[in-house]
Amino acid sequence: MADGRFFNNAGPFSLAELVAISGASRVDTAAQSKLYADVQPLDSATPSDVSFLDNKKYKQSFLETAAGLCIVRPDMADSAPPGTQVLVTADPYAAYARVAGAFYPVPVPKGAISEFAHIDSDAQIGENCLIAPGVHIAAGVTIGTNCVIGAHTSIAAGCQIGNDARIGASVSLQYCLVGHSVIIHPGVCIGQDGFGFAPGAQGHLKVPQLGRVIIGDDVEIGANTTIDRGTGPDTVIGTGTKIDNLVQIGHNAEIGRHCFIVAHVGISGSTKIGDFTMIGGQVGIAGHLKIGAGVKIAAQSGVMRDVADGETIGGSPAQPMKTWFREIAMVQKLAKTKVGKHGQ
Amino acid sequence: MADGRFFNNAGPFSLAELVAISGASRVDTAAQSKLYADVQPLDSATPSDVSFLDNKKYKQSFLETAAGLCIVRPDMADSAPPGTQVLVTADPYAAYARVAGAFYPVPVPKGAISEFAHIDSDAQIGENCLIAPGVHIAAGVTIGTNCVIGAHTSIAAGCQIGNDARIGASVSLQYCLVGHSVIIHPGVCIGQDGFGFAPGAQGHLKVPQLGRVIIGDDVEIGANTTIDRGTGPDTVIGTGTKIDNLVQIGHNAEIGRHCFIVAHVGISGSTKIGDFTMIGGQVGIAGHLKIGAGVKIAAQSGVMRDVADGETIGGSPAQPMKTWFREIAMVQKLAKTKVGKHGQ
Amino acid sequence: MADGRFFNNAGPFSLAELVAISGASRVDTAAQSKLYADVQPLDSATPSDVSFLDNKKYKQSFLETAAGLCIVRPDMADSAPPGTQVLVTADPYAAYARVAGAFYPVPVPKGAISEFAHIDSDAQIGENCLIAPGVHIAAGVTIGTNCVIGAHTSIAAGCQIGNDARIGASVSLQYCLVGHSVIIHPGVCIGQDGFGFAPGAQGHLKVPQLGRVIIGDDVEIGANTTIDRGTGPDTVIGTGTKIDNLVQIGHNAEIGRHCFIVAHVGISGSTKIGDFTMIGGQVGIAGHLKIGAGVKIAAQSGVMRDVADGETIGGSPAQPMKTWFREIAMVQKLAKTKVGKHGQ
Repeated sequence: MADGRFFNNAGPFSLAELVAISGASRVDTAAQSKLYADVQPLDSATPSDVSFLDNKKYKQSFLETAAGLCIVRPDMADSAPPGTQVLVTADPYAAYARVAGAFYPVPVPKGAISEFAHIDSDAQIGENCLIAPGVHIAAGVTIGTNCVIGAHTSIAAGCQIGNDARIGASVSLQYCLVGHSVIIHPGVCIGQDGFGFAPGAQGHLKVPQLGRVIIGDDVEIGANTTIDRGTGPDTVIGTGTKIDNLVQIGHNAEIGRHCFIVAHVGISGSTKIGDFTMIGGQVGIAGHLKIGAGVKIAAQSGVMRDVADGETIGGSPAQPMKTWFREIAMVQKLAKTKVGKHGQ
Repeated sequence: MADGRFFNNAGPFSLAELVAISGASRVDTAAQSKLYADVQPLDSATPSDVSFLDNKKYKQSFLETAAGLCIVRPDMADSAPPGTQVLVTADPYAAYARVAGAFYPVPVPKGAISEFAHIDSDAQIGENCLIAPGVHIAAGVTIGTNCVIGAHTSIAAGCQIGNDARIGASVSLQYCLVGHSVIIHPGVCIGQDGFGFAPGAQGHLKVPQLGRVIIGDDVEIGANTTIDRGTGPDTVIGTGTKIDNLVQIGHNAEIGRHCFIVAHVGISGSTKIGDFTMIGGQVGIAGHLKIGAGVKIAAQSGVMRDVADGETIGGSPAQPMKTWFREIAMVQKLAKTKVGKHGQ
Repeated sequence: MADGRFFNNAGPFSLAELVAISGASRVDTAAQSKLYADVQPLDSATPSDVSFLDNKKYKQSFLETAAGLCIVRPDMADSAPPGTQVLVTADPYAAYARVAGAFYPVPVPKGAISEFAHIDSDAQIGENCLIAPGVHIAAGVTIGTNCVIGAHTSIAAGCQIGNDARIGASVSLQYCLVGHSVIIHPGVCIGQDGFGFAPGAQGHLKVPQLGRVIIGDDVEIGANTTIDRGTGPDTVIGTGTKIDNLVQIGHNAEIGRHCFIVAHVGISGSTKIGDFTMIGGQVGIAGHLKIGAGVKIAAQSGVMRDVADGETIGGSPAQPMKTWFREIAMVQKLAKTKVGKHGQ
């Protein structure tokens, strides 16, 4: 059971309800009315819990689970231990996400604006927003309905935020237009000056940063991530893109829709990235590049050239994955030979 | 036109004024009194806009621009499209920075201290400072004139800040002395304990951190960057140095004047870096090293040795740039041969 | 002398006292009652100061120091300059840490809760806590005795914090249980949603994150570090572990006791790390791995496989240190030969 100090369980749900919620198919023989009380990992699940198997690395845990119900792929449907009923689907992780979301729904905010929030009289706040103590909202800001804004968050003049935003504590928003249903975790900084200077032998001249940050709907932005505003063009984050913690996105970068950007990634200024591209942790991408759609970039890669749609790349400098793996293997092999030990 | 919700245009400016502001030479035939309304990138500029060409990657955009006036290098002076007048200079980016700064000057703060700021009676605040709600200023702090301090920023006991500082929201300053005209973006943490422990088999002993952080004039520090105070010696950031977002600078590090330090760089403790050194994104520099002046370090490099003045290095471990490139080329070539495929 | 604006010197201490405090042995001939006024680095120490030599890189500074007393290893006991008495120990850094801690003890907080803190009536605060303006403490939070909580820190519903915590400014704590004597530096974000999505061609489905973050005693967490809560299992940081600035720890990660994790390290979800493991700066560790106890990982390494107890590894992908060094040497050597220049 999730810790009751932090989470409220909306269950139990019957098997029939879980079939409907999960979108998975029932292949078991249990009664439709059988009740399940909670979701749990395979290792700790009990006969009243729902679990799932997605990553094959955890197959052994599945074979030994005590879960009453488990969501699996078709090829695992016959391998469940005797006490475990199964629900079958091509995407167990998505089905589990729906079930877990039913047991632990995101609380609907009870609209309330703290008397200790500092909201300019010229700001517009939509209905039913929950605004914590210490929030600072400047003139000309507009915020949609049903938004939650955490303590000590600062929203500077002119920013716009859509409906259903969930914004954490100590966030700084400036010069930005944010879509609907956006999640911004604590400590995020959006819209500050890009890193733009004209270098000089007597010191570097600051270049005015005259653009904005435009964030689409359903974007999620991880804790302490930073997104600089554009220099004149805007910095753009496409709808549905998910950004992890401590990511840096430079001025004028344009990120497509539904990308994944893992922690510590740095995307330099003016680089454009297509839709559904996945960028592993600690990747660095140079400036002024075009990265296609559906690209996959391995963790820690250094990308120094344009990348075509659908490429999978790795290494620093990044290359096609096969080439990179072959080079690694070649170096490892060669280091064990005379060449490696003594040169030629 | 920059978004009027965020930016105020101080134009128009006449051609004669723009010549004076930019420092570039006029080689066109337009009337001195012709007015220009705004700055714009080459792609979106109209006949009433000023633009510039610096990075050759955008030459095609220049050849097709509708900008009324464009700042270029001498070799491009004759290539402008028919409707575009040119201003010529050896450094178009610097000239553009001056012009853009004239159109969009940094607003002079209207001195005002929020009644919701928490300022110790023993702190000294200079004239005409703009201090936002929630700012916390402790005893013994002195702040110069014309400073802007963003919401929820915390300045701990004894800190000193010069004139004309622009400090963002949710910044934490401790144990630091800051020069004039410094820009500190949101979420920056300066002066917390360095990472100093005497390791032990029963646990690690914390080493008191008894130094400060000394920051010169005209320094800019990017969002969520962290700079630890010294252990006894100070951590020092030289005048004019520009630091990007999410950079880590360890205790006792001494950074020279007018350096560039790009996002996600980590500089370990007690390392000294000379003036005008440029450090690419995600570079790591080990502790107790001496990096010279005018050094250039490629992105993602790992620096494990001292570096002489003027060197250009790359790779992990970092080597002279030519050596690194040759090694990359060698590995790429060799992986395609029998050696790469089968060893010898 | 440490800057009196920031530090209070509790000295002087006599030689006899310093022997007792440091745990080092006296091999000098000075009077037991001789007083020392301060700690100082070798370079700036005077005859009334205590210094130490640990890193051999600073041996020359030791040979030329003016320090009155110096803590050294046995092999250096006879090399001190004429005016310098020595204290001898196998671990000079630890002995210095104890001496410096005696000169500059951590101030005992004078319990005081700011009238500008926002504390829910259902929160429990232990005796003698120092709580700064703007702190927000939600319902159901319990905080132990003698804790210091910095300005604008936010502690969400249900969190528990032990005794003697030192928490900096603008920290965000959610869904976490924190042990005793924990230090959390400014800007740290703990307990926000892990980066969990079920990817889909129409967009990615958010997976509820139903676990917590469990932090042991004596843990230190550096500025702007982020630790996500678990998905169902918890994210765990073992007792005594020290984490530097800007580190990312993913959901369900379990870090052992007394580890060192240097700045910019990224530890992916569900990875388990043993006790006393040391992880260098900018290391990335993939998800779902088992890293043993006593492992050492060189800076910037990329760890993509399980690692046995006691291994020392480096490189990306990481390999045993000797193998990695041999490969680097091989590539460097080969690039200078015909193979490197022309292939075969």
